[in-house]
Amino acid sequence: MAKDSKKFVEAITSREEDFAQWYTDVVKNAELIDYSSVRGCMVFRPNGYAIWENIQKNLDARFKETGVENVYMPMFIPESLLNKEKDHVEGFAPEVAWVTEGGQEKLPERLCVRPTSETLFCDLYSKIVHSYRDLPKVYNQWCSVVRWEKTTRPFLRNAEFLWQEGHTAHATAEEAEERTIQMLNVYADFVEKDLAIPLIKGRKTDKEKFAGAKATYTIESMMHDGKALQSGTSHNFGDGFARAFGIQFSDKDNQLKYVNQTSWGLSTRIIGAIIMVHGDDSGLVLPPHIAPTQVMVIPIAQHKEGVLEKAEEVRQALSAVLRTKIDASDKTPGWKFSEQEMRGIPVRVELGPKDIEAGTAVVVRRDDRSKEVVAIADLPVRVPQILEEMQAAMYERAKVFRDSHLYEATDYETFVDTINNKPGFVNAMWCGDAACEAKIKEDTTATSRCMPFEQKHLSDTCVCCGKPAKIMVTWGKAY
Amino acid sequence: MAKDSKKFVEAITSREEDFAQWYTDVVKNAELIDYSSVRGCMVFRPNGYAIWENIQKNLDARFKETGVENVYMPMFIPESLLNKEKDHVEGFAPEVAWVTEGGQEKLPERLCVRPTSETLFCDLYSKIVHSYRDLPKVYNQWCSVVRWEKTTRPFLRNAEFLWQEGHTAHATAEEAEERTIQMLNVYADFVEKDLAIPLIKGRKTDKEKFAGAKATYTIESMMHDGKALQSGTSHNFGDGFARAFGIQFSDKDNQLKYVNQTSWGLSTRIIGAIIMVHGDDSGLVLPPHIAPTQVMVIPIAQHKEGVLEKAEEVRQALSAVLRTKIDASDKTPGWKFSEQEMRGIPVRVELGPKDIEAGTAVVVRRDDRSKEVVAIADLPVRVPQILEEMQAAMYERAKVFRDSHLYEATDYETFVDTINNKPGFVNAMWCGDAACEAKIKEDTTATSRCMPFEQKHLSDTCVCCGKPAKIMVTWGKAY
Repeated sequence: MAKDSKKFVEAITSREEDFAQWYTDVVKNAELIDYSSVRGCMVFRPNGYAIWENIQKNLDARFKETGVENVYMPMFIPESLLNKEKDHVEGFAPEVAWVTEGGQEKLPERLCVRPTSETLFCDLYSKIVHSYRDLPKVYNQWCSVVRWEKTTRPFLRNAEFLWQEGHTAHATAEEAEERTIQMLNVYADFVEKDLAIPLIKGRKTDKEKFAGAKATYTIESMMHDGKALQSGTSHNFGDGFARAFGIQFSDKDNQLKYVNQTSWGLSTRIIGAIIMVHGDDSGLVLPPHIAPTQVMVIPIAQHKEGVLEKAEEVRQALSAVLRTKIDASDKTPGWKFSEQEMRGIPVRVELGPKDIEAGTAVVVRRDDRSKEVVAIADLPVRVPQILEEMQAAMYERAKVFRDSHLYEATDYETFVDTINNKPGFVNAMWCGDAACEAKIKEDTTATSRCMPFEQKHLSDTCVCCGKPAKIMVTWGKAY
Repeated sequence: MAKDSKKFVEAITSREEDFAQWYTDVVKNAELIDYSSVRGCMVFRPNGYAIWENIQKNLDARFKETGVENVYMPMFIPESLLNKEKDHVEGFAPEVAWVTEGGQEKLPERLCVRPTSETLFCDLYSKIVHSYRDLPKVYNQWCSVVRWEKTTRPFLRNAEFLWQEGHTAHATAEEAEERTIQMLNVYADFVEKDLAIPLIKGRKTDKEKFAGAKATYTIESMMHDGKALQSGTSHNFGDGFARAFGIQFSDKDNQLKYVNQTSWGLSTRIIGAIIMVHGDDSGLVLPPHIAPTQVMVIPIAQHKEGVLEKAEEVRQALSAVLRTKIDASDKTPGWKFSEQEMRGIPVRVELGPKDIEAGTAVVVRRDDRSKEVVAIADLPVRVPQILEEMQAAMYERAKVFRDSHLYEATDYETFVDTINNKPGFVNAMWCGDAACEAKIKEDTTATSRCMPFEQKHLSDTCVCCGKPAKIMVTWGKAY
């Protein structure tokens, strides 16, 4: 019996009914990802990978403007190298994959598949940095990393995922701190402006910081279910790794000094954020700036004379200014609309015999389904404007949602009640003691997302223990 | 004691003295690659990786013009999946790296780190291809692969290297064959036009074809020492993998059929070819089309008033049309020239007080060191022309070299004598028997590079056994 062609658009669970199932349905039905034969490893299908390609292109250009140079480091790290920095190995060793055999022989030393590459960059820098003239080193690589985690979810927690990791070395602590913040700001600008996701920028508590870092800075975003997603991090290592790996340089004053280092990363997790911040019950909604296809031209009654030709003309005219496709398949217009909506293509241009007669087309925005009749000749001017309006509206909508789900608490009862019963984040004062952080996590499963740069003095005392407060923390349940 | 800044330009071995050492020296001194702590794995440094980035950009655009879509597949292949196609596993199993432990537990099944991803693509296609409407699938991925080989050489044979691998599925055998040849032509066009490397296109003998392929096509290039480098391959699998993996579709006639597949790849080996075809005793010579930096502006007597300012003006003007840098460091001009030459930057623009007074600059080509005095105002027009002239001259020079090292032989004595004593390839007739191929390899270490598309009838009999000849083969010693 012949297998039937699979249906592209299938009913998906609604967000309110079951957010987790909705997410899985969207990822699968928009054909972003497929499961592979390896536990926790995903296939990035063309629709999913094209989003990542656009993120790469955009972010890489921003990196290069700040003087970043790309490199590629080996994917394997010898166990002895991983072990060089104590905190770092403790943070990562439990979740790595080990290569123990190669070319039909048992290896003399286990090699881990990189979970992150600080150790390799340090090893390189220890060999190529000698003088202040060799500094700074501002290297980055785009690659895949492996973290052998028990439970996985598409984009959010994969055994293997794609990311970029920047690793820098500087002559002074000040310069390293500047670079750490600079890259955090590059991420924030990109995520807010191009992904239309509002952020809270801040510093991680010691408990939440990166294994081996002196300070970790983060951008945190709120998903539609009120949960937090760490969307990018930037770490200042001070000279900790430099001491462990012996990365020294001869400074202008002829003194031998240790370099100061940073690292910073953003991964395919961010695609999960795009889905969960912007998506709706019809599927994906992609921010125009990074949508692989920005416009889908859909002919109506395409069997009628002249319709396909005109639609193809429109596609060509729009292709000069936007990433445009035409759906001239033999599916019904309604089916094509559903497909375009499921895939999150920002606008569709509907074009039928009556439109053509009137010299117009109907432009429909994906985010709010608003329609606008536009003269065909004006499309190449007006559609880019509509996309910019949509980009701005998506950010605004997400910000209103985030702000209306950002609570404050000054006593523990209210804090626990809010974080447990209202989707969103809670701002509250903290004494700085890790014990309070641990208690909150135990009582509520919420974690400290960050100590935001934008501080507010909510109360004099820690929301948990009542001791004098040091700083305001944003708390949330996280992916 | 303070470590001294390392010297950028060091004397390198001459090509004639020791070609292998020359190669290693260039790779190291042009800072393309560094060795890592893992045997056979290399660090691609900024100068080396930037070449690969340009190759990617150029080739990816060509792919997309032919309808290729990019994806990303997992880096691990379960042993049972690798074992599904018999010839394929026999070809690759001996040289793979195995992951046996993950997350502190022994894995139930070994996972190999991909040496190539046919099996994963087949696994995916078996799940997502159902109807003729789902075809063709023309997927590609840019990634790293691992082949655990005993001896390694930078770019040429690394335990881990970077490449792209395209994998397609088609409804008919004809369409698969067309795609196989189409992609070979995409490679050939790119390598000849943008890398300035002349090629021999042809088909591999059964002995040399890809493990599991019905036919393998190749582009072969000749290095300056006369050795061959396989520079890109395109394989037609017929329906062999489809049968092993059960990739079937319901055709227009409602019959269930197996797809026909292809795969094609080009790797960072090609950077080795660029070095060995074009390099000289001063270092690298990069084809202008893919040189990361195309122009280096070098101020002369830069301490004199106005020199640096004018040089910076020139840099800016040239940056609008070419990838341009300025070397305003405190090194001597001679030192800067050596650096620019070592790194293979196609032209330098020398600019001193006298030039500025005359309103001119001296443009020096890297390949033949020819100098041209150009009015400063004309630089943005003239330098791009000079680069195109250089690009064409590099191809021509390489072609003259290749043609003058391409011999013919009609008897075995001449054949063996030529292949052993004259650097280059030898064309000779072959009976089609693998025994002759084996004997030639044993007697001379030369292998059949390909059965070129451009055939010539050199003799009636096989150069090895004297039996009737079927086809002309290009023989050579290979990297």
